[in-house]
Amino acid sequence: MILAAKFLDVSSVTSHTTHLLIMFYIIGLGLADEKDITVRGLEAVKGSTRVYLEAYTSILMVQKERLVRELAMGLQTRVSLSWQAKEAFYEKPLILADRDMVETQSDEILHRADEVDVALLVVGDPFGATTHTDILLRARALHIPTRVIHNASIMNAVGAAGLQLYQFGQTVSLVFFTETWKPDSFYDRIKENADLGLHTLVLLDIKVKEISDENLARGRKIYEPPRYMSIPLAVNQLLEIESIRKAGILDSDNTLAVALSRVGGGEDQRIVAGTLANLANHPEESFGEPLHSLIIVGKRLHHLEVEYAEDFAIDRERWRMVASKVYGCALD
Amino acid sequence: MILAAKFLDVSSVTSHTTHLLIMFYIIGLGLADEKDITVRGLEAVKGSTRVYLEAYTSILMVQKERLVRELAMGLQTRVSLSWQAKEAFYEKPLILADRDMVETQSDEILHRADEVDVALLVVGDPFGATTHTDILLRARALHIPTRVIHNASIMNAVGAAGLQLYQFGQTVSLVFFTETWKPDSFYDRIKENADLGLHTLVLLDIKVKEISDENLARGRKIYEPPRYMSIPLAVNQLLEIESIRKAGILDSDNTLAVALSRVGGGEDQRIVAGTLANLANHPEESFGEPLHSLIIVGKRLHHLEVEYAEDFAIDRERWRMVASKVYGCALD
Repeated sequence: MILAAKFLDVSSVTSHTTHLLIMFYIIGLGLADEKDITVRGLEAVKGSTRVYLEAYTSILMVQKERLVRELAMGLQTRVSLSWQAKEAFYEKPLILADRDMVETQSDEILHRADEVDVALLVVGDPFGATTHTDILLRARALHIPTRVIHNASIMNAVGAAGLQLYQFGQTVSLVFFTETWKPDSFYDRIKENADLGLHTLVLLDIKVKEISDENLARGRKIYEPPRYMSIPLAVNQLLEIESIRKAGILDSDNTLAVALSRVGGGEDQRIVAGTLANLANHPEESFGEPLHSLIIVGKRLHHLEVEYAEDFAIDRERWRMVASKVYGCALD
Repeated sequence: MILAAKFLDVSSVTSHTTHLLIMFYIIGLGLADEKDITVRGLEAVKGSTRVYLEAYTSILMVQKERLVRELAMGLQTRVSLSWQAKEAFYEKPLILADRDMVETQSDEILHRADEVDVALLVVGDPFGATTHTDILLRARALHIPTRVIHNASIMNAVGAAGLQLYQFGQTVSLVFFTETWKPDSFYDRIKENADLGLHTLVLLDIKVKEISDENLARGRKIYEPPRYMSIPLAVNQLLEIESIRKAGILDSDNTLAVALSRVGGGEDQRIVAGTLANLANHPEESFGEPLHSLIIVGKRLHHLEVEYAEDFAIDRERWRMVASKVYGCALD
C-alpha cells in the first residue's frame, strides 16, 4: 500500500498538475524580476481566478495617466514597467494590493477563495513578513486550504557576498532617523551577534505613503515618492549610535561590512565590501538600485570568506589588512 | 543617457533573454521537486551545453540496472525517479555529480565553460554549501564569468513553521553519534542562541557513501544505502549532551521544538510541533520523508508564533501550556 502510494506520488510529478482542492496561494516572486517565479508558482498563477500582486510601494497604485507622465522618472518608471512586464509574462491581469490592503482587507483578498483559486504574489519568500502569516491564519480560520510556494529571499540570497549563512546571527532592521526619533534597539542586537563573533544582516528602511507637511495641512492625500535608505546614510546612522552607546562594536576603520543591492544574480546586482569608512565615503550611485542591505562582519570570519568577498572590495589592500590584523584571519 | 539605459534594461526583461556572454551557472532547485526551479533557471538549463545535477546521495550514481532492481525500495526509488523526472522536465540530459566530484573535480565541470554555457544544478540555494563558493572561486581564477540563480533553501523556508526569521540565531548541524564519537560543539551554539532568547535551526545529518566493515575488509567498494537522521534520534542526541553538559537549555518537558520535513509547500511537507518529549515519543513515520530539520524554540517567543505553530502541535494543550507557563507568552 505504501509502495503504491509512492508510485502515484512520483508519477504525479511528471504528469500535468491537477488538483481538486481549491486553494489560496501565497507565491514568492524571488528577488530580481518576473522570471524569478518558480515553474510551480507560474502554474498556480495561471490556474487562479484572481491574482493579487503585493506592491512594495504606493507608487504602484497610481493611475495609468500618471504612469505615462512619470515614464522619465527612473526607479518609479522601472517599478511600474516591471509590474506591466509581470502582467504580460504571467498572462494574467494583476490586482495591485499594497501592504496596508493585505493587512487590513485580507477578507477581500480571501473572498470566495473556498470556491475559486486565488493567488497573492509577494516579493522574496512569503515568510519574510509577518503580514503573510496573518493572512494565512485568517484563511485557516475561514477553513480555506492554503499553500505557500517558496522562493529566494534576502535571508538566504545574502550568501552571495561569500559570507557563510551559518555564521549569521539574528537579522535587524534600521529605520530612517529623524531629528527627534532615533530608535536604536538594533544596536543591542548587533552587539549580541558581535559578542559571539557572528555576522549581522541589516535590512534598510523604505518609506512609502508619506504625505508632506504642506499637503497634510491642506488635507490633500498626495503621497511623496518612496524613499529608500542609502548605504552611506545607513553607515552614518550606525556610527552615530556607536558614538552615543560606545560599546566599541562599530568602528569606521576597523569594522568590515558588505553592502548588497538587487541580489538576484542579475545584471543589476551590486555587492560592495569595505570598512565602514570605505562604504560611507563611496558615491551613493555605485551601490546600485534599491533595496539595499548591509552585512556587519563578525569576528569569527574565515579566511575563505575574506577571499571570496575580496573581489567586491573598494580597497582590496585595506580589506585584507583589516581582516588579517583586526579580525585575526590567517591569509596567504 | 541614463534614461536610455534604463529603458533598454526594462525592455530586455519583457523580450526573450539573449546574452552574448558565455556563463557558468549555478542554479538553485529549491526544496520540493523539479517544478521548483525558477523560469530564469529553466531558461539557463535549456541554453546550456552541459548540465550537471549535484546528487545529494551516492545512490544516484548507480547504474540503470540497479535502479530498476531497486524500484521497490522506497526512498531510493523516489530519488532515482525524481532524477528521471527532472531530466524529462528540463528536456536536457543531466550529468550526475556527487558532492565529492563537485569538490575535487571542479575543473572537469568547468571544462570549456569559457566557450559554452555550463550549468550546475543544486538542491536549495547555491550558497547553502561552501562547496559552491569554492567552485565559483575556481571559475573566477579561470576567468570564467559566473552567474548564480537563487532559490528557496531551508534557511528561509523554515519560516513555514510560523516562527519569525528575525528571531533565529546561528544555524547548527547535528551529526550521527557513534559509541566513541559524540561531537557536541552544536550545544555551545544552541546555548548562545538560547541565552539571547533566539530560536535555533538544527540541520540533521545524512550519511552517504558508507562502506560496511565487512565490505571494507574485503576491499569491496559497495556503498550502503544512505542514512538520514530521524527526529526522535536527533532529540535523543540533544538530550544526551544536555545530560552531560547540564547547562539547562534543553528539557524534555519544558523545551518546545518544531520538526520540519520536505518544506516546499508540497503534499509531502510535514511540520510537527511539541515539547522535546512529545517529539521523541512520536512515531518516526509521522515526521514524513527525509531530509529533516528541527527548530529549538527560544524564549523571545511571541504569542502569534505560538498560535501559528499550534496547528502543527502533537498535543495542543501542552504546547500552549508550556508556551504560557515556561516561555511566558500571554495567550488568549
